[in-house]
Amino acid sequence: MKSVSIKAVLATAPESQQVTVNGWVKSFRNDRFIALNDGSTLKNIQCVVESNQFNETILQQITVGAALKVTGALVESQGRGQTVEIQVTDIFVHGTADPEEVKLTILSPKKHSLEFLREQAHLRVRTNTFGAIMRVRSALSFAIHQYFNQNGFQYFHAPIITGSDAEGAGEMFKVTTLDAKKTSLNEAGEVDYKEDFFGKETNLTVSGQLEAEAYAMGLGKVYTFGPTFRAENSNTSRHLAEFWMVEPEVAFNDLNDNMDLAEDFIKSVVRYALDNCMEDLAFLQERLLNEEKSKPQVERSEMALIEKLRFVVDNDFKRITYTEAIDILRNSKPNKKKKFTYPIDEWGADLQSEHERFLVEKHFKCPVILFDYPAKIKAFYMRLNEDGKTVRAMDILFPGIGEIVGGSQREERLDVLKSKMEALGIPEEELWWYLDLRKFGTAVHSGFGLGFERLVLFATGMGNIRDVIPFPRTPQNAEF
Amino acid sequence: MKSVSIKAVLATAPESQQVTVNGWVKSFRNDRFIALNDGSTLKNIQCVVESNQFNETILQQITVGAALKVTGALVESQGRGQTVEIQVTDIFVHGTADPEEVKLTILSPKKHSLEFLREQAHLRVRTNTFGAIMRVRSALSFAIHQYFNQNGFQYFHAPIITGSDAEGAGEMFKVTTLDAKKTSLNEAGEVDYKEDFFGKETNLTVSGQLEAEAYAMGLGKVYTFGPTFRAENSNTSRHLAEFWMVEPEVAFNDLNDNMDLAEDFIKSVVRYALDNCMEDLAFLQERLLNEEKSKPQVERSEMALIEKLRFVVDNDFKRITYTEAIDILRNSKPNKKKKFTYPIDEWGADLQSEHERFLVEKHFKCPVILFDYPAKIKAFYMRLNEDGKTVRAMDILFPGIGEIVGGSQREERLDVLKSKMEALGIPEEELWWYLDLRKFGTAVHSGFGLGFERLVLFATGMGNIRDVIPFPRTPQNAEF
Repeated sequence: MKSVSIKAVLATAPESQQVTVNGWVKSFRNDRFIALNDGSTLKNIQCVVESNQFNETILQQITVGAALKVTGALVESQGRGQTVEIQVTDIFVHGTADPEEVKLTILSPKKHSLEFLREQAHLRVRTNTFGAIMRVRSALSFAIHQYFNQNGFQYFHAPIITGSDAEGAGEMFKVTTLDAKKTSLNEAGEVDYKEDFFGKETNLTVSGQLEAEAYAMGLGKVYTFGPTFRAENSNTSRHLAEFWMVEPEVAFNDLNDNMDLAEDFIKSVVRYALDNCMEDLAFLQERLLNEEKSKPQVERSEMALIEKLRFVVDNDFKRITYTEAIDILRNSKPNKKKKFTYPIDEWGADLQSEHERFLVEKHFKCPVILFDYPAKIKAFYMRLNEDGKTVRAMDILFPGIGEIVGGSQREERLDVLKSKMEALGIPEEELWWYLDLRKFGTAVHSGFGLGFERLVLFATGMGNIRDVIPFPRTPQNAEF
Repeated sequence: MKSVSIKAVLATAPESQQVTVNGWVKSFRNDRFIALNDGSTLKNIQCVVESNQFNETILQQITVGAALKVTGALVESQGRGQTVEIQVTDIFVHGTADPEEVKLTILSPKKHSLEFLREQAHLRVRTNTFGAIMRVRSALSFAIHQYFNQNGFQYFHAPIITGSDAEGAGEMFKVTTLDAKKTSLNEAGEVDYKEDFFGKETNLTVSGQLEAEAYAMGLGKVYTFGPTFRAENSNTSRHLAEFWMVEPEVAFNDLNDNMDLAEDFIKSVVRYALDNCMEDLAFLQERLLNEEKSKPQVERSEMALIEKLRFVVDNDFKRITYTEAIDILRNSKPNKKKKFTYPIDEWGADLQSEHERFLVEKHFKCPVILFDYPAKIKAFYMRLNEDGKTVRAMDILFPGIGEIVGGSQREERLDVLKSKMEALGIPEEELWWYLDLRKFGTAVHSGFGLGFERLVLFATGMGNIRDVIPFPRTPQNAEF
């Protein structure tokens, strides 16, 4: 008999029809009630076993973590907590799970620390929390593709291995096939990359933006959604060495269009999660409430998870210039009372996390788009404003998350771009093709990057970025 | 005035309403007819200019490759080849394109070789051919996500940097932050990876399968769609060092379910392209017909592109065992006439491309699924059949492409898997977590990998895999 997903069975009207499901045992109460889960949904199906109808050997194998195939009649449930249940007539044990061994793993039915769960990242997706997180992550991914598809964007795969290190977004990982034991140096004492696979030094990409610009200047509206890398020794709850980034790039969009796009995009994908993941979100909301019970009132979230997501969808993001932000910060209580680690006294200072948090969490209490930053603290490719000192950059700051988007209108003027590169010592030969985009039909264009894991953090209410990606890569950790 | 995409304008009923479009000049005929394209569609919009109404300086800047913003009344076209056109009242030149410089690039309006186009991969997307290819590629990507989303799969991001090199699918790229100039060797004369970013040797993944298995054993149905890597020195029209792979993995699926899934999946995404990309496909079909005109009759495709895609959607894939395939090959004309470079005389031989092509292109003339391969020529994780000598592997072979899918039912029995690993010298410590999946609720499960670029090759009728990915990475080439 063809099996069906537990999600489908739970949505079926019970008419005593025969159904077959597969799944893993979450619990087996009173030698009678199996709670079975197959990952298709957070919820388990209750399978009722008349123990005198089954062989003792079979019954003994029904322990937490075992994989079963169960057949029986789907009937209305008499118990609480579920509408339907299966009156079991047949059980096949796919695989057992020795209770003594299970005890040593995160599969054992008790509360485990998130640290311990990370050590068993190959099993943690079987827990309610991680099942919920990963289904929400998947739904958000789909929402991203759907949003861009519906809005006329082409999905563009930026190269992962890159011969360029000019973007300067961060430290890079080297990619090589050279044998480190016998690296040959040339006469100048440098590594001879002619021998390497690509015949030159290559790295893992930090961003697909520059290549996406090339594609936007042909296809008009494009986006990337792929892995990017930072070889930075940051052991924080907000950084990964390998993470997924979404980068739309649009020809003929200026910075205002770019802000409109980013805001509409974020609202749309969060709305998708609200429309499609309510069960998992409600569970994650409950988890967060429980976790925060042990915290002092002032550290608890002001809004519950779902309310917070609705707030983002329903309210305009606040848009202010960097200059306005500096004014607010300079006159703020924490600045005057010298509570900031980095006091704000003059225009031009790079904003630190404490400043961003003040603006978003205390002052505006909503997502904030900061724009028109000082040129000096931003990347070379951002368009210089007429004032000669600010660039058309924007960052979107989220409560509890900090920077979730960084973007800009790009410098489309060949001469301005060249002099900027020269000033920063970026050789033209390195980016000849990027300059070509300004030689042949250049135009205003803009884009941004959204750190996907930060969005998942926000949507799931989790506190550590290592808990929203299946197998996190961080300094000293590439397990699995 | 807000601009709209050319695709939208071309689909609008002309009522002399004002429209504004942006795009690049494809041609400017008789100082009067601008063909403008913005990448939203293959088609250009005709913009009619009364040259006496415009400044000579503006008119001189309207050359091939220049970027313009054009405003005017949308009217019914009097000319052939388009239904609507714009009677231009206003032109803004975003960026010029010096005709002397354009002459040296692939933007110049004449036929360029695919090799020359590859050298200017940053510009080639502006040509009709590459615009069409990349829109089809994007549509196929979306079709993949949509198919899995609609069928209850969770999108799972497999790690790109991996500490494991056990899968043995091919040569790997090393990922490191060590300075090759001063690599420190330990007492045993080996590189000391404790100093490296992850504290151990790490590589770029060749497949997300093993990790996807872990996720399937929790979420039930998962898939990856991400970049994978091979550091193989293969300079062929079918191989890339960096390519995108789709890998579904399903708990409780056996090999038959796996074949059903693969066939349904491929048909569904090809159908999506037929339903959504007809304009681009028709153009690519024409391109292929033109290209093949110079070939002798026997080397030309038997079916035109769109007919070939329809054939795949409408016909069952032929399923035969490896053993049956060997019988067919042994008794085939080319084998008897010693036309194969590798004659087939006994069971157990690995099939070469010439054999696969014979089966698919000459014998069956349709996609073929070969299954139940000799264990000796397949990977360690494939499930051993009861005969003790074959495994539940399957390959899908496509006309003109060769292997497009490789998959299997996985070995779910801990003891069998362990002895297989031991025989092959794969240390258990390396894959402790993979073995855990067989300790805790193991179950039948299956999956496959589809090389995305091979699918794009098939769908676009292109001949070289370097022409269906934006920026190809191959030996000695990581430009852009």
